[in-house]
Amino acid sequence: MKILLTAITALSFTIGSVPARAQQNLDLGPAMVRMAELEIDPAQLDAYKAILAEEQAASVRLEPGVLMLHSFAIAEDPTRVRLLEVYASKNAYESHIRSPHFLKYKTSTEKMVRSLRLIDAAPIILCAKSSGSPSGTAICLSPDK
Amino acid sequence: MKILLTAITALSFTIGSVPARAQQNLDLGPAMVRMAELEIDPAQLDAYKAILAEEQAASVRLEPGVLMLHSFAIAEDPTRVRLLEVYASKNAYESHIRSPHFLKYKTSTEKMVRSLRLIDAAPIILCAKSSGSPSGTAICLSPDK
Repeated sequence: MKILLTAITALSFTIGSVPARAQQNLDLGPAMVRMAELEIDPAQLDAYKAILAEEQAASVRLEPGVLMLHSFAIAEDPTRVRLLEVYASKNAYESHIRSPHFLKYKTSTEKMVRSLRLIDAAPIILCAKSSGSPSGTAICLSPDK
Repeated sequence: MKILLTAITALSFTIGSVPARAQQNLDLGPAMVRMAELEIDPAQLDAYKAILAEEQAASVRLEPGVLMLHSFAIAEDPTRVRLLEVYASKNAYESHIRSPHFLKYKTSTEKMVRSLRLIDAAPIILCAKSSGSPSGTAICLSPDK
């Protein structure tokens, strides 16, 4: 993949269609954006994080409608976990919560999660490097692009 | 760009290096992840969001070390804005806050922001579709990959 991307970058420079500092603006369409605030049992935190990470990766890999799943802990209290979830549509979310990997996560972490608060969000703009690394192209998703 | 990406996808399938449900796992290295919680003057909310969106797009487009800047409002109170910020390193962040586009944002929104809380975060895993759309490859960044 790395080789392919390098080739593409070279090609882009050659034909001039993608400048070195390109940006793609995409329409978020009917995307569903949500934040989750969780509190995890400290004794089970490592196990929880491993199960969560596996579930996130499987969801973004296997489900076309799961666009982003980002998780992090609050540095000063790592038992407080936050998620930013972006689904292509409400339907994509409904399909996600019926997926085998989500159901496995839900069942296996049931006794690890002390509290869960789901917060509906209205996206302003979501910008990231396409490749996840400094050489990537900027891709910005917003409700009005 | 779209044509190029289509060509790449076709090529990938042909040579078999990137299966349709591929996932790339990348090391976050010394990345700095942070959340910002802001409260915005309701009378200036639209202006604030426009300036913020412009600054985010410029930062991810122009600065190699700005990996992600995602912003959204809490649906039930859109004056409460949240940001998830991912920088490749502390140095990348230091460079970011000295950039012309960040300084312009900071100056022009000074009287729009009623409160600002910065929260250091410990990333668990950040997974997203590479292209920002359902057909993208899953890219997951984590501290131990």
